Amino acid sequence: MEKGFVQIYTGDGKGKTTAAVGLTLRAIASGYKVFFCQFMKGEESGEIRALKKHSESIDVFLCGISKFCVNKKNPSREQVKAARKGFELAKKAIFSRKYDLVVLDEINMAICYNLINLEDVINILKDKPSSVEIILTGRNAPSELYPYADLISEIKEIKHYYKEGVKARRGIEY
Amino acid sequence: MEKGFVQIYTGDGKGKTTAAVGLTLRAIASGYKVFFCQFMKGEESGEIRALKKHSESIDVFLCGISKFCVNKKNPSREQVKAARKGFELAKKAIFSRKYDLVVLDEINMAICYNLINLEDVINILKDKPSSVEIILTGRNAPSELYPYADLISEIKEIKHYYKEGVKARRGIEY
Repeated sequence: MEKGFVQIYTGDGKGKTTAAVGLTLRAIASGYKVFFCQFMKGEESGEIRALKKHSESIDVFLCGISKFCVNKKNPSREQVKAARKGFELAKKAIFSRKYDLVVLDEINMAICYNLINLEDVINILKDKPSSVEIILTGRNAPSELYPYADLISEIKEIKHYYKEGVKARRGIEY
Repeated sequence: MEKGFVQIYTGDGKGKTTAAVGLTLRAIASGYKVFFCQFMKGEESGEIRALKKHSESIDVFLCGISKFCVNKKNPSREQVKAARKGFELAKKAIFSRKYDLVVLDEINMAICYNLINLEDVINILKDKPSSVEIILTGRNAPSELYPYADLISEIKEIKHYYKEGVKARRGIEY
Protein backbone atom coordinates (compact mmCIF):
# COMPACT_ATOMS: atom_id res chain seq x y z
CA MET A 1 0.00 0.00 0.00
CA GLU A 2 1.30 3.44 -0.85
CA LYS A 3 0.41 4.91 2.53
CA GLY A 4 -1.32 3.03 5.31
CA PHE A 5 -3.42 4.66 8.00
CA VAL A 6 -4.71 3.74 11.43
CA GLN A 7 -8.48 3.26 11.74
CA ILE A 8 -10.46 2.75 14.95
CA TYR A 9 -14.01 1.37 15.10
CA THR A 10 -15.50 1.73 18.54
CA GLY A 11 -18.82 2.43 20.30
CA ASP A 12 -21.59 0.27 21.75
CA GLY A 13 -23.49 -0.35 18.49
CA LYS A 14 -23.46 -3.37 16.19
CA GLY A 15 -21.12 -3.13 13.21
CA LYS A 16 -17.53 -2.90 14.41
CA THR A 17 -16.21 -6.39 13.70
CA THR A 18 -18.64 -6.54 10.79
CA ALA A 19 -17.02 -3.44 9.26
CA ALA A 20 -13.55 -4.90 9.81
CA VAL A 21 -14.64 -8.08 8.01
CA GLY A 22 -16.11 -6.06 5.13
CA LEU A 23 -12.94 -4.02 4.89
CA THR A 24 -10.84 -7.17 4.87
CA LEU A 25 -12.88 -8.62 2.00
CA ARG A 26 -12.54 -5.35 0.09
CA ALA A 27 -8.76 -5.34 0.63
CA ILE A 28 -8.40 -8.97 -0.45
CA ALA A 29 -10.43 -8.22 -3.58
CA SER A 30 -7.88 -5.55 -4.45
CA GLY A 31 -4.94 -7.91 -4.05
CA TYR A 32 -3.80 -6.88 -0.59
CA LYS A 33 -2.36 -9.26 1.99
CA VAL A 34 -4.14 -9.23 5.34
CA PHE A 35 -3.30 -10.37 8.86
CA PHE A 36 -6.50 -10.67 10.88
CA CYS A 37 -6.07 -11.14 14.62
CA GLN A 38 -9.20 -11.52 16.70
CA PHE A 39 -8.83 -10.94 20.43
CA MET A 40 -11.28 -12.03 23.13
CA LYS A 41 -13.13 -14.48 20.91
CA GLY A 42 -11.88 -18.04 20.85
CA GLU A 43 -14.59 -19.60 18.75
CA GLU A 44 -14.48 -19.49 14.99
CA SER A 45 -17.42 -17.50 13.67
CA GLY A 46 -18.96 -17.67 10.21
CA GLU A 47 -17.06 -14.69 8.90
CA ILE A 48 -13.75 -16.09 10.10
CA ARG A 49 -14.44 -19.35 8.28
CA ALA A 50 -15.35 -17.37 5.17
CA LEU A 51 -12.25 -15.19 5.35
CA LYS A 52 -10.02 -18.23 5.87
CA LYS A 53 -11.14 -19.54 2.49
CA HIS A 54 -9.05 -16.77 0.93
CA SER A 55 -5.97 -18.45 2.38
CA GLU A 56 -3.62 -17.11 -0.26
CA SER A 57 -4.39 -13.54 0.86
CA ILE A 58 -5.03 -13.76 4.58
CA ASP A 59 -3.61 -15.17 7.77
CA VAL A 60 -6.07 -15.41 10.63
CA PHE A 61 -5.23 -15.84 14.29
CA LEU A 62 -7.82 -16.19 17.06
CA CYS A 63 -6.44 -15.52 20.50
CA GLY A 64 -9.38 -15.40 22.83
CA ILE A 65 -10.63 -17.83 25.39
CA SER A 66 -14.10 -16.41 25.75
CA LYS A 67 -15.43 -12.90 25.63
CA PHE A 68 -17.72 -13.25 28.54
CA CYS A 69 -15.66 -14.53 31.41
CA VAL A 70 -12.82 -12.05 31.77
CA ASN A 71 -12.50 -10.55 35.21
CA LYS A 72 -11.33 -7.03 34.45
CA LYS A 73 -9.47 -6.60 37.71
CA ASN A 74 -8.00 -10.04 37.69
CA PRO A 75 -7.92 -11.69 34.24
CA SER A 76 -6.77 -15.29 34.32
CA ARG A 77 -3.19 -16.07 33.42
CA GLU A 78 -4.46 -18.17 30.51
CA GLN A 79 -6.42 -15.24 29.09
CA VAL A 80 -3.50 -12.84 29.39
CA LYS A 81 -1.19 -15.38 27.79
CA ALA A 82 -3.54 -15.95 24.84
CA ALA A 83 -4.01 -12.22 24.21
CA ARG A 84 -0.27 -11.49 24.49
CA LYS A 85 0.53 -14.26 22.04
CA GLY A 86 -1.91 -12.74 19.54
CA PHE A 87 -0.43 -9.32 20.15
CA GLU A 88 3.14 -10.52 19.57
CA LEU A 89 2.10 -12.23 16.33
CA ALA A 90 0.27 -9.10 15.18
CA LYS A 91 3.30 -6.96 16.02
CA LYS A 92 5.52 -9.27 14.03
CA ALA A 93 3.04 -9.14 11.14
CA ILE A 94 3.02 -5.34 11.19
CA PHE A 95 6.79 -5.01 11.12
CA SER A 96 7.35 -7.90 8.70
CA ARG A 97 6.09 -5.73 5.82
CA LYS A 98 4.50 -8.87 4.41
CA TYR A 99 1.01 -7.51 5.02
CA ASP A 100 -0.78 -4.44 3.70
CA LEU A 101 -3.58 -4.55 6.25
CA VAL A 102 -3.47 -5.75 9.85
CA VAL A 103 -6.79 -6.06 11.68
CA LEU A 104 -6.69 -6.09 15.49
CA ASP A 105 -10.29 -7.09 16.07
CA GLU A 106 -11.62 -6.50 19.61
CA ILE A 107 -8.24 -5.23 20.76
CA ASN A 108 -9.90 -2.23 22.44
CA MET A 109 -11.68 -4.70 24.71
CA ALA A 110 -8.46 -6.59 25.34
CA ILE A 111 -6.82 -3.34 26.47
CA CYS A 112 -9.85 -2.43 28.56
CA TYR A 113 -9.75 -5.84 30.28
CA ASN A 114 -6.05 -5.43 31.06
CA LEU A 115 -5.01 -8.28 28.83
CA ILE A 116 -2.84 -6.01 26.74
CA ASN A 117 -0.87 -2.95 27.72
CA LEU A 118 -2.08 0.32 26.25
CA GLU A 119 1.46 1.68 25.97
CA ASP A 120 2.54 -1.33 23.91
CA VAL A 121 -0.26 -0.65 21.43
CA ILE A 122 0.60 3.04 21.23
CA ASN A 123 4.24 2.21 20.55
CA ILE A 124 3.23 0.05 17.60
CA LEU A 125 1.00 2.77 16.15
CA LYS A 126 3.82 5.29 16.55
CA ASP A 127 6.47 3.13 14.90
CA LYS A 128 4.53 1.13 12.30
CA PRO A 129 5.88 1.02 8.74
CA SER A 130 4.07 3.71 6.80
CA SER A 131 2.85 1.25 4.17
CA VAL A 132 0.75 -0.79 6.63
CA GLU A 133 -2.91 -0.03 7.33
CA ILE A 134 -4.03 -0.98 10.85
CA ILE A 135 -7.62 -1.44 12.00
CA LEU A 136 -8.48 -1.55 15.72
CA THR A 137 -11.99 -2.51 16.78
CA GLY A 138 -13.95 -2.99 19.97
CA ARG A 139 -16.02 -0.88 22.30
CA ASN A 140 -14.40 1.45 24.82
CA ALA A 141 -11.39 2.37 22.72
CA PRO A 142 -9.14 4.27 25.14
CA SER A 143 -9.03 7.94 24.18
CA GLU A 144 -5.24 7.79 24.56
CA LEU A 145 -5.24 5.95 21.20
CA TYR A 146 -7.07 8.74 19.38
CA PRO A 147 -4.06 10.96 18.60
CA TYR A 148 -2.45 8.01 16.81
CA ALA A 149 -5.47 7.23 14.63
CA ASP A 150 -6.21 8.81 11.27
CA LEU A 151 -9.84 7.72 11.22
CA ILE A 152 -12.19 7.04 14.11
CA SER A 153 -15.77 5.83 13.67
CA GLU A 154 -17.93 5.56 16.75
CA ILE A 155 -20.83 3.17 16.22
CA LYS A 156 -23.63 4.26 18.49
CA GLU A 157 -26.46 1.99 19.45
CA ILE A 158 -29.69 3.85 18.78
CA LYS A 159 -31.83 0.74 19.03
CA HIS A 160 -30.94 -2.93 19.43
CA TYR A 161 -33.05 -6.08 19.38
CA TYR A 162 -30.95 -7.57 22.18
CA LYS A 163 -33.04 -5.38 24.41
CA GLU A 164 -36.12 -7.22 23.18
CA GLY A 165 -34.55 -10.48 24.33
CA VAL A 166 -33.28 -11.57 20.93
CA LYS A 167 -30.18 -13.73 21.26
CA ALA A 168 -27.14 -13.56 18.97
CA ARG A 169 -27.95 -15.36 15.73
CA ARG A 170 -25.65 -17.52 13.63
CA GLY A 171 -25.07 -15.88 10.24
CA ILE A 172 -26.07 -12.46 11.52
CA GLU A 173 -24.18 -11.80 14.75
CA TYR A 174 -21.50 -14.49 14.42
CA MET B 1 -34.16 -17.67 8.70
CA GLU B 2 -36.35 -18.30 11.71
CA LYS B 3 -37.09 -14.65 12.29
CA GLY B 4 -35.71 -11.80 10.26
CA PHE B 5 -35.26 -8.26 11.53
CA VAL B 6 -34.76 -4.83 10.04
CA GLN B 7 -31.37 -3.20 10.61
CA ILE B 8 -30.35 0.35 9.76
CA TYR B 9 -26.74 1.59 9.51
CA THR B 10 -26.59 5.35 9.23
CA GLY B 11 -24.45 8.33 10.28
CA ASP B 12 -21.62 10.30 8.71
CA GLY B 13 -18.76 7.96 9.67
CA LYS B 14 -16.97 5.32 7.62
CA GLY B 15 -18.26 1.77 8.05
CA LYS B 16 -21.86 1.53 6.83
CA THR B 17 -21.48 -0.24 3.50
CA THR B 18 -18.44 -1.97 4.95
CA ALA B 19 -20.59 -3.42 7.75
CA ALA B 20 -23.25 -4.51 5.25
CA VAL B 21 -20.57 -6.30 3.22
CA GLY B 22 -19.22 -8.00 6.34
CA LEU B 23 -22.70 -9.05 7.35
CA THR B 24 -23.33 -10.43 3.88
CA LEU B 25 -20.17 -12.52 4.02
CA ARG B 26 -21.16 -13.78 7.47
CA ALA B 27 -24.64 -14.73 6.22
CA ILE B 28 -23.27 -16.50 3.13
CA ALA B 29 -20.86 -18.43 5.33
CA SER B 30 -23.86 -19.74 7.27
CA GLY B 31 -25.67 -20.89 4.15
CA TYR B 32 -28.07 -17.99 3.75
CA LYS B 33 -29.17 -16.62 0.39
CA VAL B 34 -28.59 -12.90 -0.09
CA PHE B 35 -29.93 -10.23 -2.42
CA PHE B 36 -27.59 -7.23 -2.38
CA CYS B 37 -28.88 -4.08 -4.04
CA GLN B 38 -26.59 -1.07 -4.10
CA PHE B 39 -28.22 2.27 -4.80
CA MET B 40 -26.46 5.46 -5.88
CA LYS B 41 -23.24 3.71 -6.91
CA GLY B 42 -22.98 2.54 -10.50
CA GLU B 43 -19.39 1.36 -10.49
CA GLU B 44 -18.45 -2.06 -9.29
CA SER B 45 -16.22 -1.78 -6.24
CA GLY B 46 -13.80 -4.37 -4.91
CA GLU B 47 -16.21 -5.75 -2.35
CA ILE B 48 -18.95 -6.17 -4.95
CA ARG B 49 -16.58 -8.15 -7.16
CA ALA B 50 -15.61 -10.28 -4.15
CA LEU B 51 -19.23 -10.90 -3.14
CA LYS B 52 -20.18 -11.82 -6.70
CA LYS B 53 -17.71 -14.69 -6.53
CA HIS B 54 -20.16 -16.40 -4.17
CA SER B 55 -22.64 -16.55 -7.03
CA GLU B 56 -24.44 -19.60 -5.68
CA SER B 57 -25.43 -17.64 -2.57
CA ILE B 58 -25.88 -14.07 -3.71
CA ASP B 59 -27.52 -11.95 -6.37
CA VAL B 60 -26.10 -8.47 -6.73
CA PHE B 61 -27.74 -5.53 -8.46
CA LEU B 62 -26.14 -2.10 -8.85
CA CYS B 63 -28.60 0.61 -9.67
CA GLY B 64 -26.76 3.89 -9.42
CA ILE B 65 -25.50 6.24 -12.03
CA SER B 66 -23.11 8.15 -9.84
CA LYS B 67 -23.20 9.15 -6.23
CA PHE B 68 -21.92 12.62 -6.75
CA CYS B 69 -24.07 14.19 -9.38
CA VAL B 70 -27.62 13.86 -8.06
CA ASN B 71 -29.46 17.15 -7.82
CA LYS B 72 -31.59 16.66 -4.74
CA LYS B 73 -34.35 18.97 -5.86
CA ASN B 74 -34.34 17.78 -9.41
CA PRO B 75 -32.78 14.33 -9.90
CA SER B 76 -32.45 13.32 -13.52
CA ARG B 77 -35.04 10.98 -15.00
CA GLU B 78 -32.28 8.46 -15.68
CA GLN B 79 -31.25 8.46 -12.02
CA VAL B 80 -34.79 8.04 -10.78
CA LYS B 81 -35.40 5.25 -13.27
CA ALA B 82 -32.26 3.37 -12.22
CA ALA B 83 -33.09 3.64 -8.51
CA ARG B 84 -36.71 2.61 -9.00
CA LYS B 85 -35.66 -0.42 -11.03
CA GLY B 86 -33.38 -1.48 -8.19
CA PHE B 87 -36.13 -0.87 -5.69
CA GLU B 88 -38.63 -2.98 -7.64
CA LEU B 89 -36.14 -5.83 -7.92
CA ALA B 90 -35.38 -5.62 -4.20
CA LYS B 91 -39.08 -5.62 -3.39
CA LYS B 92 -39.59 -8.69 -5.53
CA ALA B 93 -36.63 -10.35 -3.83
CA ILE B 94 -38.04 -9.60 -0.37
CA PHE B 95 -41.47 -11.05 -1.14
CA SER B 96 -40.17 -13.98 -3.22
CA ARG B 97 -39.05 -15.73 -0.01
CA LYS B 98 -36.05 -16.95 -1.98
CA TYR B 99 -33.67 -14.84 0.08
CA ASP B 100 -32.87 -14.80 3.78
CA LEU B 101 -31.10 -11.45 3.73
CA VAL B 102 -31.81 -8.44 1.53
CA VAL B 103 -29.31 -5.58 1.67
CA LEU B 104 -30.47 -2.17 0.46
CA ASP B 105 -27.12 -0.44 0.44
CA GLU B 106 -27.20 3.38 0.29
CA ILE B 107 -30.98 3.37 0.13
CA ASN B 108 -31.12 6.07 2.80
CA MET B 109 -29.30 8.37 0.41
CA ALA B 110 -31.61 7.37 -2.44
CA ILE B 111 -34.60 8.38 -0.28
CA CYS B 112 -32.89 11.58 0.78
CA TYR B 113 -32.21 12.49 -2.87
CA ASN B 114 -35.83 11.86 -3.79
CA LEU B 115 -35.02 8.93 -6.04
CA ILE B 116 -37.17 6.61 -3.95
CA ASN B 117 -40.33 7.31 -2.05
CA LEU B 118 -40.09 7.02 1.74
CA GLU B 119 -43.64 5.66 2.01
CA ASP B 120 -42.85 2.85 -0.41
CA VAL B 121 -39.92 1.78 1.75
CA ILE B 122 -42.01 1.94 4.93
CA ASN B 123 -44.70 -0.20 3.32
CA ILE B 124 -42.14 -2.89 2.54
CA LEU B 125 -40.79 -2.87 6.08
CA LYS B 126 -44.32 -3.14 7.43
CA ASP B 127 -45.36 -6.02 5.20
CA LYS B 128 -42.14 -7.99 4.72
CA PRO B 129 -42.26 -11.76 5.31
CA SER B 130 -41.10 -12.33 8.86
CA SER B 131 -38.35 -14.71 7.76
CA VAL B 132 -36.45 -12.07 5.78
CA GLU B 133 -33.72 -9.90 7.33
CA ILE B 134 -33.41 -6.46 5.73
CA ILE B 135 -30.41 -4.13 6.01
CA LEU B 136 -30.69 -0.46 5.05
CA THR B 137 -27.56 1.66 4.88
CA GLY B 138 -26.58 5.21 4.05
CA ARG B 139 -26.22 8.49 5.86
CA ASN B 140 -29.26 10.59 6.74
CA ALA B 141 -31.65 7.71 7.36
CA PRO B 142 -35.06 9.40 7.69
CA SER B 143 -36.25 9.14 11.28
CA GLU B 144 -39.64 8.01 9.93
CA LEU B 145 -37.98 4.64 9.27
CA TYR B 146 -36.89 4.18 12.89
CA PRO B 147 -40.15 2.72 14.25
CA TYR B 148 -39.93 -0.05 11.65
CA ALA B 149 -36.34 -0.99 12.47
CA ASP B 150 -35.31 -3.48 15.14
CA LEU B 151 -31.69 -2.36 15.21
CA ILE B 152 -30.22 1.03 14.41
CA SER B 153 -26.48 1.76 14.49
CA GLU B 154 -25.37 5.34 13.95
CA ILE B 155 -21.78 5.53 12.79
CA LYS B 156 -20.37 8.83 13.90
CA GLU B 157 -17.31 10.37 12.38
CA ILE B 158 -14.97 11.31 15.21
CA LYS B 159 -11.98 11.80 12.93
CA HIS B 160 -11.51 11.17 9.21
CA TYR B 161 -8.48 11.35 6.98
CA TYR B 162 -10.57 12.83 4.16
CA LYS B 163 -10.21 16.05 6.09
CA GLU B 164 -6.43 15.77 5.70
CA GLY B 165 -6.93 15.65 1.93
CA VAL B 166 -6.67 11.86 1.59
CA LYS B 167 -8.68 10.60 -1.38
CA ALA B 168 -10.75 7.39 -1.40
CA ARG B 169 -8.39 4.43 -1.81
CA ARG B 170 -8.98 1.28 -3.84
CA GLY B 171 -9.12 -1.72 -1.51
CA ILE B 172 -9.90 0.43 1.53
CA GLU B 173 -12.77 2.76 0.61
CA TYR B 174 -14.00 0.97 -2.51
